Amino acid sequence: MRKLNLIECVGNIFQLEPHTDNFADNSCILVIFGGTGDLAHRKLMPALYNLLCQNQLPPNLAIVALGRRDIASDEYNYGVYESIIKFARFDLEETNWSQLRDKIYYKKLNFTDSSDFVELKTFLDKLEQKHGTGGNRIYYLAVAPEFFNVITQRLNDNGMAKNQGSWQRVVIEKPFGRDLPSAQKLNRVITGVFSERNTYRIDHYLGKEMLQNIMVIRFANMLFEPIWNNQFIDNVQITSCETVGVGSRGNYYEQSGALRDMVQNHMLQLLTLTAIEPPASLDTESIRDEKVKVLRSLEQFSPNDAFKNVVRGQYGPGYIDNEPVSGYRQEKNVSPTSGTETFVAFKANIHSFRWANVPFYIRTGKRAPVKSTEIIIQFKPLPRVLYARLFGQLNPNLLVIKIQPKEGVFFQFNAKKPGTESIIVPVQMDFCQNCRLDNNSPEAYERLLFDILRGDSTLFARWDEVEYSWRFVDNIASAWQEQQPEFPNYAAGSTGPAAAQTLLARDGREWLHTGEVIE
Amino acid sequence: MRKLNLIECVGNIFQLEPHTDNFADNSCILVIFGGTGDLAHRKLMPALYNLLCQNQLPPNLAIVALGRRDIASDEYNYGVYESIIKFARFDLEETNWSQLRDKIYYKKLNFTDSSDFVELKTFLDKLEQKHGTGGNRIYYLAVAPEFFNVITQRLNDNGMAKNQGSWQRVVIEKPFGRDLPSAQKLNRVITGVFSERNTYRIDHYLGKEMLQNIMVIRFANMLFEPIWNNQFIDNVQITSCETVGVGSRGNYYEQSGALRDMVQNHMLQLLTLTAIEPPASLDTESIRDEKVKVLRSLEQFSPNDAFKNVVRGQYGPGYIDNEPVSGYRQEKNVSPTSGTETFVAFKANIHSFRWANVPFYIRTGKRAPVKSTEIIIQFKPLPRVLYARLFGQLNPNLLVIKIQPKEGVFFQFNAKKPGTESIIVPVQMDFCQNCRLDNNSPEAYERLLFDILRGDSTLFARWDEVEYSWRFVDNIASAWQEQQPEFPNYAAGSTGPAAAQTLLARDGREWLHTGEVIE
Repeated sequence: MRKLNLIECVGNIFQLEPHTDNFADNSCILVIFGGTGDLAHRKLMPALYNLLCQNQLPPNLAIVALGRRDIASDEYNYGVYESIIKFARFDLEETNWSQLRDKIYYKKLNFTDSSDFVELKTFLDKLEQKHGTGGNRIYYLAVAPEFFNVITQRLNDNGMAKNQGSWQRVVIEKPFGRDLPSAQKLNRVITGVFSERNTYRIDHYLGKEMLQNIMVIRFANMLFEPIWNNQFIDNVQITSCETVGVGSRGNYYEQSGALRDMVQNHMLQLLTLTAIEPPASLDTESIRDEKVKVLRSLEQFSPNDAFKNVVRGQYGPGYIDNEPVSGYRQEKNVSPTSGTETFVAFKANIHSFRWANVPFYIRTGKRAPVKSTEIIIQFKPLPRVLYARLFGQLNPNLLVIKIQPKEGVFFQFNAKKPGTESIIVPVQMDFCQNCRLDNNSPEAYERLLFDILRGDSTLFARWDEVEYSWRFVDNIASAWQEQQPEFPNYAAGSTGPAAAQTLLARDGREWLHTGEVIE
Repeated sequence: MRKLNLIECVGNIFQLEPHTDNFADNSCILVIFGGTGDLAHRKLMPALYNLLCQNQLPPNLAIVALGRRDIASDEYNYGVYESIIKFARFDLEETNWSQLRDKIYYKKLNFTDSSDFVELKTFLDKLEQKHGTGGNRIYYLAVAPEFFNVITQRLNDNGMAKNQGSWQRVVIEKPFGRDLPSAQKLNRVITGVFSERNTYRIDHYLGKEMLQNIMVIRFANMLFEPIWNNQFIDNVQITSCETVGVGSRGNYYEQSGALRDMVQNHMLQLLTLTAIEPPASLDTESIRDEKVKVLRSLEQFSPNDAFKNVVRGQYGPGYIDNEPVSGYRQEKNVSPTSGTETFVAFKANIHSFRWANVPFYIRTGKRAPVKSTEIIIQFKPLPRVLYARLFGQLNPNLLVIKIQPKEGVFFQFNAKKPGTESIIVPVQMDFCQNCRLDNNSPEAYERLLFDILRGDSTLFARWDEVEYSWRFVDNIASAWQEQQPEFPNYAAGSTGPAAAQTLLARDGREWLHTGEVIE
């Protein structure tokens, strides 16, 4: 965070009181299903280490990593040690590491074997005594979605899911279903065992610094809220693109595609936070209520609307950074005739007084020329008076919230170019949060784990959010089933299919972007 | 100017068509009265050289420097050569210099000797033939104000002020009078000879880049104009302070003081440009009309108002950059019991629908801890909802237009401090125009001379602007005469007298400032 040197009168830095849980005691055992997996190694363990370095772990904590492999705890810990060196943002220091190591236990467990769960119960009960965690549990399901149901059931069957006088939380990684019916089914199983308030559905985008900042920017500044509506805003563009292809995730991705992998969760979360009405208060349910309200106000697409307002794409061979890369159909574990989309762009309409006639253009894709997630608010054009009359239409004002890799806020406005002649040029005011060398923004998982540990579910998806998102996405998916796509339709390293440009050109608009050149 | 890398869609850079004069031909003789003075050497000649380097001088141009000293043209030119090396922003190159040198003529002239003017006429007539300047003249009065009248008269008496088929312009340096009656008298003499449209009253602040930018920022951006009023703005603060003392200007300053030296012209120009209504068009008279309208809407102070709303100060001994400096009364050519003010702060009210209840706090002073001129727009406080309810009042949004030494626009808003906790801190978006190493903003006099040469008087004060400014200032001055000030009342290196703080504290406000620490 850039140091503030601005104002003498400004005062204290205020500390938000944590959303306190009913359970004063945050001591617990964190049980990670999928403890040998990628997520545990690359994200969860480094995040736990980061939290420890900041004194943000409860003093009484045990971490139990469960996996199918039969390895010793020491061997497992060595792997964690290496992961922390590689992925944690705090340097590995032996005193910190030994503190964390002393909390970690590896245990072999076959998710489908019920006797393993009996053993697990005994193991956890013993650990509870040792670490004084008082029966509190977090079950983190960092496993393939097909195991969500069975693990939940077995936890329940073995009396590990609900205990008087203590709390038990479950954390579900994405994907939460692959359409509305499957999500509903999964949800029935989970909520049959855990209450909604103890269910933490992960959308890791919500843990990102700038996503958390959207509400602060909108509601802690006197100037933004009054202009955040269709009187001032012309359109909103939300882009999340990445340069990587499907990589080793072909198996998963063939079943998912960009619509399910990105739109149903991350893109709709970005849209929702940009569009929500000011909530009645900052408590978890007030905010979630407003998010759901946006999703309910989203115009649902008929099959015809979907063909008109949604563009899908799949990358063919191309170049990234001047290096040739293969097309999607040539990737590992991908069908050579795959109809899976790696790109989605659509125009969303929100039926509300605030947003009527303000299109939200959303796009996400793989193998883009740059990695960038950002929200661009494009303000209305100037009336044709004074400078705009003299020069023709000037550039519109833009407010850009950059989510990643740069984090910050940019405002584009018009100013006179210095010099003796009067020339008007667009210039930027920028606040780049992570541009300082000493900046070290927390990882999304750090914040999310912190919140799970203290029982704050604000940054997690409530069931009805998931439900309305699937409803929106299912309409698109079912329209797509009626027609074979002509894939591939964009080259790796390009900004996507031509139809994505047409989508905006039709409305007399263009995709905007900041920073790195995208084309 | 910072390079723009923002937007792919944004287009061309538009060129403002110059405000064309009725006289198509800009050829002329520029006659500088006071050619050996400080202004000519430090500002005018370097500015002419800069203009030449940019091909912005008319091809047919002669420059006649007039002074009382009997020196040869070569000697004079050598002095100019040295000034250019020292003060021009373009490096001295011999080919450019020789082009400029060939246009410069030095001539001895006693302003009060009428026979000298006869000689001057003959000299100019001859030069006109040589340089093909066709009778066009600019008379630049860079002399002490007591000579303004006599020079104007003699130019007229000798038939140099008005000639058929050519134009003659007069340029008047500040001060334009020392109160309303003396300004009126001077103006009667000048306008008896030159028309208003040929009279260029210099306020060199109007030549500064960011002053010219104020109107562009306000009227070439869709977001600023709608919030530029008492619905969104809480108060406006305009500060122009400098670290230097009176230096060698004691004689002049004892007669003037900060009120006449800074407020009547520069500070009121800053206020005016910040406050004007959008003009009907961008032509000279439309803009001037609006500026006058602001000055006419300024609340005039009764003697009582003046004591309540205006603070005067005079610096005593103190420290600048940890070095001891003397008080004003100890400076050269200053009375040891001087009652001259070196600091003024006041609260102005503009009686208009736009600005009702928005105080404009203005301050200017010598021997301040930093050199800085800036306009701070402080926006209204947040309603006590959401974050402002949780944290108590948050910092207000601020828009800062920095005039000098830094040139740029800053916006302060609130954002979440990166980290796992929610802490709200004020951060800045900034656009710093002259922070790039390769930036080289033109000097104010460069733009002003350019405009005089092409006949554009937009950046010069029209008579009624001067008139209304004096009216406002005279009310203060006459109130002050009723009471002896208790001087000195602030230490060199401090931000001014305590009463200046009280002026705002009374309204529950504080002086704001950006960048360098002022206290």
